[in-house]
Amino acid sequence: MELRKECANAIRALTMDAIDKSKSGHPGAPMGMANMAEALWRFAYKHNPKNPRWFNRDRFVLSNGHASMLLYSLLHLTGYDLSMDDIKNFRQLHSKTPGHPEIERTAGVDIGTGPLGQGIATAVGMALAEKLLAKKFNRENHAVIDHKTWVFLGDGCLMEGVAQEAISLAGTWKLNKLIALYDSNAISIDGDIKNWFTEDVAKRFEASNWHVIKDIDGHNPEELDKALAAAQTVSDKPVLIICKTVIGYGSPHKAGKSSCHGSPMGAEENEATKQALGWKYAPFEIPQHLYGAWNCVEKGKKANDEWDKAFQEYAKAYPELAKELSRRIKGEFPPEYSEAFEKLFTDLLNAQEDIATRVAGKKVLDAIAQSLPELLGGSADLTGSVGTLHANSKDLDLESFEGNYIHYGVREFAMSTVMNGLSLHGGFIPYGGTFLVFSDYAKNAIRLAALSKIRGIWVLTHDSIGVGEDGPTHQPIEHVSALRLTPNVDVWRPCDTIESAVAWKAGIEKKDGPTCLAMSRQNLKAQAHTKAQLADIAKGAYILSDSEKTPEIILIATGSEVGLAVEGAKALKDQGKQVRVVSMPCADVFDRQDGAYKEKILPKAIRKRIALEAGSADFWYKYVGLDGKIIGMTSFGESAPANQLFAYYGFGLDNLLAKAKELLGE
Amino acid sequence: MELRKECANAIRALTMDAIDKSKSGHPGAPMGMANMAEALWRFAYKHNPKNPRWFNRDRFVLSNGHASMLLYSLLHLTGYDLSMDDIKNFRQLHSKTPGHPEIERTAGVDIGTGPLGQGIATAVGMALAEKLLAKKFNRENHAVIDHKTWVFLGDGCLMEGVAQEAISLAGTWKLNKLIALYDSNAISIDGDIKNWFTEDVAKRFEASNWHVIKDIDGHNPEELDKALAAAQTVSDKPVLIICKTVIGYGSPHKAGKSSCHGSPMGAEENEATKQALGWKYAPFEIPQHLYGAWNCVEKGKKANDEWDKAFQEYAKAYPELAKELSRRIKGEFPPEYSEAFEKLFTDLLNAQEDIATRVAGKKVLDAIAQSLPELLGGSADLTGSVGTLHANSKDLDLESFEGNYIHYGVREFAMSTVMNGLSLHGGFIPYGGTFLVFSDYAKNAIRLAALSKIRGIWVLTHDSIGVGEDGPTHQPIEHVSALRLTPNVDVWRPCDTIESAVAWKAGIEKKDGPTCLAMSRQNLKAQAHTKAQLADIAKGAYILSDSEKTPEIILIATGSEVGLAVEGAKALKDQGKQVRVVSMPCADVFDRQDGAYKEKILPKAIRKRIALEAGSADFWYKYVGLDGKIIGMTSFGESAPANQLFAYYGFGLDNLLAKAKELLGE
Repeated sequence: MELRKECANAIRALTMDAIDKSKSGHPGAPMGMANMAEALWRFAYKHNPKNPRWFNRDRFVLSNGHASMLLYSLLHLTGYDLSMDDIKNFRQLHSKTPGHPEIERTAGVDIGTGPLGQGIATAVGMALAEKLLAKKFNRENHAVIDHKTWVFLGDGCLMEGVAQEAISLAGTWKLNKLIALYDSNAISIDGDIKNWFTEDVAKRFEASNWHVIKDIDGHNPEELDKALAAAQTVSDKPVLIICKTVIGYGSPHKAGKSSCHGSPMGAEENEATKQALGWKYAPFEIPQHLYGAWNCVEKGKKANDEWDKAFQEYAKAYPELAKELSRRIKGEFPPEYSEAFEKLFTDLLNAQEDIATRVAGKKVLDAIAQSLPELLGGSADLTGSVGTLHANSKDLDLESFEGNYIHYGVREFAMSTVMNGLSLHGGFIPYGGTFLVFSDYAKNAIRLAALSKIRGIWVLTHDSIGVGEDGPTHQPIEHVSALRLTPNVDVWRPCDTIESAVAWKAGIEKKDGPTCLAMSRQNLKAQAHTKAQLADIAKGAYILSDSEKTPEIILIATGSEVGLAVEGAKALKDQGKQVRVVSMPCADVFDRQDGAYKEKILPKAIRKRIALEAGSADFWYKYVGLDGKIIGMTSFGESAPANQLFAYYGFGLDNLLAKAKELLGE
Repeated sequence: MELRKECANAIRALTMDAIDKSKSGHPGAPMGMANMAEALWRFAYKHNPKNPRWFNRDRFVLSNGHASMLLYSLLHLTGYDLSMDDIKNFRQLHSKTPGHPEIERTAGVDIGTGPLGQGIATAVGMALAEKLLAKKFNRENHAVIDHKTWVFLGDGCLMEGVAQEAISLAGTWKLNKLIALYDSNAISIDGDIKNWFTEDVAKRFEASNWHVIKDIDGHNPEELDKALAAAQTVSDKPVLIICKTVIGYGSPHKAGKSSCHGSPMGAEENEATKQALGWKYAPFEIPQHLYGAWNCVEKGKKANDEWDKAFQEYAKAYPELAKELSRRIKGEFPPEYSEAFEKLFTDLLNAQEDIATRVAGKKVLDAIAQSLPELLGGSADLTGSVGTLHANSKDLDLESFEGNYIHYGVREFAMSTVMNGLSLHGGFIPYGGTFLVFSDYAKNAIRLAALSKIRGIWVLTHDSIGVGEDGPTHQPIEHVSALRLTPNVDVWRPCDTIESAVAWKAGIEKKDGPTCLAMSRQNLKAQAHTKAQLADIAKGAYILSDSEKTPEIILIATGSEVGLAVEGAKALKDQGKQVRVVSMPCADVFDRQDGAYKEKILPKAIRKRIALEAGSADFWYKYVGLDGKIIGMTSFGESAPANQLFAYYGFGLDNLLAKAKELLGE
């Protein structure tokens, strides 16, 4: 028992030392959750410090990511590649120990967290991935996919709405291998939560079909052991363990107070705390017997080796399944996948229809999805509208748990966090659809995907005033550009089926970040493309039609406005003008091209440029500068038939020609 | 009883007729909720069709805003200024009957809805306003503020996380005058909700301290009457009435199916439905006896007159209180308010400190808030960090219900919807604070404020990589510009206390939309301002320091980068250059200035321009074009001390001078 206390105190000491050194950090939560962490990570948690990406490891989600020193302490103590020097570098530039956990930076971090609520909401996606893979690949006596998703979360996570969205889904999906430990310390940054968080949390979770284990003393190892054991016996519900804890446990003057939440406690209080805890070691000193007690290298290797062996046996019994599972674990594309796309492009170059790009996207999926079984689709209750349900989609069946299509309900944010969880877990390429305007609800999850380099395809349809009668609440204005401004988000706004296919392909193959597909509600005229153009479309912008001589004027357009640009170019050519049309389905990708390609498409010397996009005008100064013109939106839309709106807001040939005339100085 | 059915069928008939004519709309929900609406609007609902803005009216929130034809039918039938021609113009350009309700457009619409979950979440703010005003202004036998907030909501609203955030707050605040009627039809767009919405809704609400009235037959007027009566007797909890309904009630082939949710049912099915309902009138025909039964003009006038009389008596008994309440109802500023700002500006012109703008904002509030008692502050659990708690703030006391400061918990979205509700109700000017990066969680509420012309001040601090050690999850990059791209959102990023004061004043006085204040975490050097500059700061951009001759180069900066621009200008002047520094605290406001002012600040001919902002670079092409330079962010940040980050990302004198040298061609 004394050893277990000492083990927990090692976390507290490292937390205090690292935060003291960096003069910055959140000591309260790691100190409060140290016993919970000790009980989980030294015993129940299945992991291999020397192989942090072992596929069948348990996943750990620190939903209250500000408690990062808890996780860094655990990684250091159990034997991951995280040295004491790394701990000493807490929160320093380019260190392995940033302020909040970042997956790309630190071996053993399964998920980047910090924005509250999203850890638990993403964990639901991880647990969903496990259950889906297990159902698909496991065979009798061959449970090759069999691991848990553990979550630590605090009061703040439960106040965020996204948590409820995800909790509800987890209950519906009966994710019994999802086990959340609630650090119930009754303190948030503003103080005692009694004035702003008065819910009966257990009852709320039970209402969402969770099994709740209540009133666990979060500082009592034996109670924690029992709760963890009990949680693992639940077979049909996710589990919440409510651990009553004291924030800043051990601190004589700050324990139980919000003052230890987000600021260093100070050298004096740290010293007093160590005394109170009976911690007698120097700063950043962990005695060998505690390193020994914490070390999980051997145990982890053993578990990993056993699994390797079991997988070999599985491969003998089910060679095809094992091959497919291995492929999906590695994230390699099957050969059929590129073939399917090649065939699709050939077909499309022969014939395209004048259809909405949301429908075009569905046709792309119809053509390629069967070749890529890891594609897992879904929608936030707009399936029929957004084109995410393709010819080979099969709704997730809640009994058999088979299917490749998830109905997320009206939960754009949880859909997005679950997509992130599926992708982080591995074995899936998730895509999900909603109206572009409701990307607002999910924005921070898309941002976390970008920051954490998570693959996922967000199908965001009804991408402009083309929404029509549903009116301004449903008509995105700023969204295409706002998403473009977010680093590492590739936003595609294709103009027809060929561009939609290129966009989908880019999204599927962008392994290091999210892709947003802005798709039209309304039908768009298919543009004539050559085979040679295909590669250029993939560069984000290309010359769709060119002038015979050096262009006098360049029309730059995306998506639904490409047709207008082409029409305008024709009219101007009839007037004898030299006009180039540049289609720019993805400005983000275009910006990554080399200078020569960019100069080829948009020569610096040609400043008579008009940008056309039924979205925020402001973004387009980037490509037309102060001397060009923009036909875009500078206000909200209106409720009316779409064609009337396009005319009303200036997306017509007359306005385009008038703008061109102004530029050409006639 | 037959009459009541007919009254409800009038809603169904108008719904079918309007949607048939516009070939667009959502028939299912209005038809399903028609009996609920009949029971509420003909009896319990207190309103005056001829005075739609009567302050003591009940408020009605159609949280499932796609059911707009329900509301338009009610407004038409009960006697509001909404003619049958308006109904016939459903969803047409500039009509009074847009696809989703818009508050500015239609008399009797208390709130614009459409994005799900936000109606109920905003209603919580309306009910909070009522309770706060009642506590403050009512006296014994003088309940001048005494009305209810009624909400209709559907399954979709309850799936959205923001609903849970707001439900939790409503329970904590014991808003018993908030009564929500849940249109429980078990259908959402994707079909039967049993596969994605399996919660025990009653239990979830009870867990959040609501009183729940279950199992009401939503098509039985007597059951509805009883439930509405019972709901009004509850004295200490908000009330949810769960009404079991059939979507598309009355339709022989589409009732109970998602096919009637979002598409016209078609002429044939409409006809069959009318037959099944026994509705025998021509399209758009309402017989006189039903107009008579529905008409609320007389009843409404009587209620309004009685209140006017009661208010006169109140004014006799409590003249000061009545005067103050009248002022707040009218939304006029007290004379002390401008005086307080004048004094503040005088003081600041004499002496400013080098402090963070988040602290500067607090000092502004310290100076002026007492003069403006309708200011109602709060924070999403970051009170100490964001500077929203000023010298005269008083936490809302849950017992006495006194106070002017709300702890919203970690609920950015619900904070924002509650702010919208407070503002829509009237009597308050709400402001609320969180970190800028978490505006992501609340974005659509800010957007709805902009669209609905709702006043509110969002205090969004920690506005750049200046966040420092907390790292990239907490460092906004795209947010300042993404909010700028949203129409009718004014985004201020002040550089010191004087600019912060101007920004706060602008936000308070912008009655027709939201203001976002992007405030620094880190200290900023105060800039020297003249009294003459104050008016120009309010224009959004101004010359902070100028060259002696015509400028060769213009440095444009905002917020924390203004100091660097000034420093750079000094160094360049020392080299003999003619340099202008333009501080642009609010690009949105600057863009609204006339051409002459804009030309004065940024002369078209001067193209050697450098923009400096520790946020998305892309936005700044708008002001520097293709020939200028931008010192901005094109990636996420890192976890490290802020000063190291600014240096690492190029926000230093060296980089600025190098860029200037490139531009000046030396």
